[in-house]
Amino acid sequence: MATETVSNTAAGLTNAVKGLFVNGKESPFFPEEPEAPILKTEIPGPQSKEAIAHLDKVFDTRSLNMMANYHNSVGNYIADLDGNVLLDVYAQIASIPVGYSNPSLLAAATSPDMASALINRPALGNFPQHDWAEILETGILKVAPKGLNQVFTATAGSDANELAYKAAFMWRRQQERGGAHVEWSPEELSTTMNNQSPGSPNLSIMSFKSGFHGRLFGSLSTTRSKPVHKMDMPAFDWPQAPFPHLKYPLEKHAEENAQEEARCLEEAERIITTFHSPVAAIIVEPVQSEGGDNHASPAFFIGLRDITKKHKVLMIVDEVQTGVGATGKFWAHEHWNMQDPPDMVTFSKKAQAAGYYFGNPDLRPNKAYRQFNTWMGDPARALLFRAIINEIERLNLVEQTAKTGDYLYAGLEKLAAKYPDEILNLRGKGQGTFIAFDSPRRDDVLKKAKTVGVNIGGSGERAVRLRPMLIFQKHHADILLEAFDKILQS
Amino acid sequence: MATETVSNTAAGLTNAVKGLFVNGKESPFFPEEPEAPILKTEIPGPQSKEAIAHLDKVFDTRSLNMMANYHNSVGNYIADLDGNVLLDVYAQIASIPVGYSNPSLLAAATSPDMASALINRPALGNFPQHDWAEILETGILKVAPKGLNQVFTATAGSDANELAYKAAFMWRRQQERGGAHVEWSPEELSTTMNNQSPGSPNLSIMSFKSGFHGRLFGSLSTTRSKPVHKMDMPAFDWPQAPFPHLKYPLEKHAEENAQEEARCLEEAERIITTFHSPVAAIIVEPVQSEGGDNHASPAFFIGLRDITKKHKVLMIVDEVQTGVGATGKFWAHEHWNMQDPPDMVTFSKKAQAAGYYFGNPDLRPNKAYRQFNTWMGDPARALLFRAIINEIERLNLVEQTAKTGDYLYAGLEKLAAKYPDEILNLRGKGQGTFIAFDSPRRDDVLKKAKTVGVNIGGSGERAVRLRPMLIFQKHHADILLEAFDKILQS
Repeated sequence: MATETVSNTAAGLTNAVKGLFVNGKESPFFPEEPEAPILKTEIPGPQSKEAIAHLDKVFDTRSLNMMANYHNSVGNYIADLDGNVLLDVYAQIASIPVGYSNPSLLAAATSPDMASALINRPALGNFPQHDWAEILETGILKVAPKGLNQVFTATAGSDANELAYKAAFMWRRQQERGGAHVEWSPEELSTTMNNQSPGSPNLSIMSFKSGFHGRLFGSLSTTRSKPVHKMDMPAFDWPQAPFPHLKYPLEKHAEENAQEEARCLEEAERIITTFHSPVAAIIVEPVQSEGGDNHASPAFFIGLRDITKKHKVLMIVDEVQTGVGATGKFWAHEHWNMQDPPDMVTFSKKAQAAGYYFGNPDLRPNKAYRQFNTWMGDPARALLFRAIINEIERLNLVEQTAKTGDYLYAGLEKLAAKYPDEILNLRGKGQGTFIAFDSPRRDDVLKKAKTVGVNIGGSGERAVRLRPMLIFQKHHADILLEAFDKILQS
Repeated sequence: MATETVSNTAAGLTNAVKGLFVNGKESPFFPEEPEAPILKTEIPGPQSKEAIAHLDKVFDTRSLNMMANYHNSVGNYIADLDGNVLLDVYAQIASIPVGYSNPSLLAAATSPDMASALINRPALGNFPQHDWAEILETGILKVAPKGLNQVFTATAGSDANELAYKAAFMWRRQQERGGAHVEWSPEELSTTMNNQSPGSPNLSIMSFKSGFHGRLFGSLSTTRSKPVHKMDMPAFDWPQAPFPHLKYPLEKHAEENAQEEARCLEEAERIITTFHSPVAAIIVEPVQSEGGDNHASPAFFIGLRDITKKHKVLMIVDEVQTGVGATGKFWAHEHWNMQDPPDMVTFSKKAQAAGYYFGNPDLRPNKAYRQFNTWMGDPARALLFRAIINEIERLNLVEQTAKTGDYLYAGLEKLAAKYPDEILNLRGKGQGTFIAFDSPRRDDVLKKAKTVGVNIGGSGERAVRLRPMLIFQKHHADILLEAFDKILQS
């Protein structure tokens, strides 16, 4: 039954996606979407409760937010098991790019190339497929950030970051050795097998307070979001710099904020020049996302680039959550208009693929098999990312998101004026739909949102974080704004 | 063109897979397979060379072994771009389970459930899909190792191991604190945000010399295979125990080998009781695979289980490469007939999915969001693993692999007698097709194998490692044995 639904939906949607405006009136990208959320039961309803109890026997459900039926989910709307259909501005923790059951993605997912990629998964480093170059060039590399023309594919954001760290450590030691041609010493060869320096050196990656870069052991050592992410895990003794705490509205606190950013830059430089384990690279998010939607100005990031250049430290920009259009640019760091590109940019989530971009040929290690693993990414996911990129271009979704974001932000500003104690530190102006605000009763707001038909996520201690998909339009923004009005009235 | 081929092949193959024997004569599982390797050009041929040069512009090709055309690959045979078709006993570094372009997998890969899983990838911990319990129960959990009824899904072998380490560290600290109900102290809460003990404790995972457990920072700290895997990477100061160096043939060195295993067990216990960072868990492969196909007896592993039980250390069995049938048991550790199950068993590769199994409810952390990440596995891959399990059952492939392995081993024994200086330390008897031998001119043997139509891999410094798929049959073994005879004659 359920499996039929997706086919029918898909058939109905194929070629049905319309242009943005018809006679000046906004026309939906997904005509099959409901016009508004549908609420049939409490959430979770009886069918969901039964299914959750069943799942709990084999899978930890304590973090479960909502059990979904994706066959019935379409566009911006997520369906549950009880007939409820919610406007979804959380989008699988900022991961669904172009809508549930997107017909263009469905076409890619049901292509013979996809079938072969799924059932014949290659060890890409050893046995790449004949069209791997083409898949990269017409997909992932087509959207490579300016100045970066190489990609190393991975499987998730956390390992994408760790692979970037590995590239940084190899690069650093190569500089220290005096070049790619210098062979490893007998001491290095023996000590590394014993996890000791100099073969396994005491180098570090500097990250920022409240940053999030993943939960494997290397990435977790750079993650500084919450104790629940880190407790009980051995960690590398790596340094953290302060991330600016900006005051809102920005225009009222320009001088104070500039001082705060200057203080953070100074401290970052102090750590880089004095930390006991030399800093090979820094990693920074354009907007600290899990950590509570903390923004900084382009000047701050350009300042970081200057400091890293000055001290020959690499700069890794973690675009796992910010990348792929949501900020109104394809990559959030484009907002900085930085002269020198970052050394590496990592991606995952909305790409439905993962990895890191780089430009400098020295970041290709000096020997084969240094940066290597069995799968080295997944052609199936690369094919899907290509379809996502095509869909974004076809519907002009980055520009569209910039516009819708401005519209949504303006609406939230009005609500903030109406509920000054409920919507605090509204932020993300000019950053597409990558918008957040603080709420003194955040968890309650998120819970109530479901009762008015909207699925919203939080971040940090008290941020309401908006992460709509790129197909979020003004009429969806209107539904969301109305929902906030209802929630905050109560 | 190429995409048509896979459809045609698939259509031709559907329902064409035959039973094992017809009138006592072995009948191929894949009637569409060539009867023998096809050699048209040198490898790489002109078309491959051109494609490799193209790929090298955007992707590191120094580890490239062979560029493949998977649309034209079928069953045990891998095709390149120049019309060459090789018998593949390397199988994407031991990762292809039931043959290229397998029609049963193709059916799963082209199902509406798969399409939805691909285009609607959920954040499983927050928004699991309605049929996730069923997918687990009818798939991954159906083959759970004895004594383990829970699974945590992941994306690759390396992160599967790291997630198991995380479970071990949380478990250990919970014991030390006095139970799941004991809250974290203010000191733990503040120190963990600074990567310092006690919040980020100095606990360790003990692994074994020449073991391989992955290449992310935690897993790499337990990997002890080769310097090229570890060089320049900061590593945790974790201990390694010796792994037995057995002498072959086993029956001639029984006493010596038993002494060697006793020595290694003694040293393992000494480390566990004295190492400066308490050992939370040990991780061990049933056969050290990347490290050179190093085997140990069931008695050794049972001894390890006894030591770990005695000292309340967890035992993680890394079945990333040994799991899913190749040893003639679904899980290689079944060969041990161990009374107590291991605490955790990790998997990836042939499962085309990844994660770890566990049985003890205490290995579910005491709070939500402690063992968590955005994706927590991939329903698309879980669906594929279910199809693989069904195919293994339908064709009785585990038993089949045990039998074919015995046949292959007997043939290699004869060759070893014929070429006593070329085939050394033949090992893997009774371990299905998970067979290896040492070769004094290993790299040359692997290279020459292609000229006689066979794709073979190596491991460690000088092992020829055989990793046929589970659909490898006696007539394929004959081709492989004949190929070895040709190579070794030269």
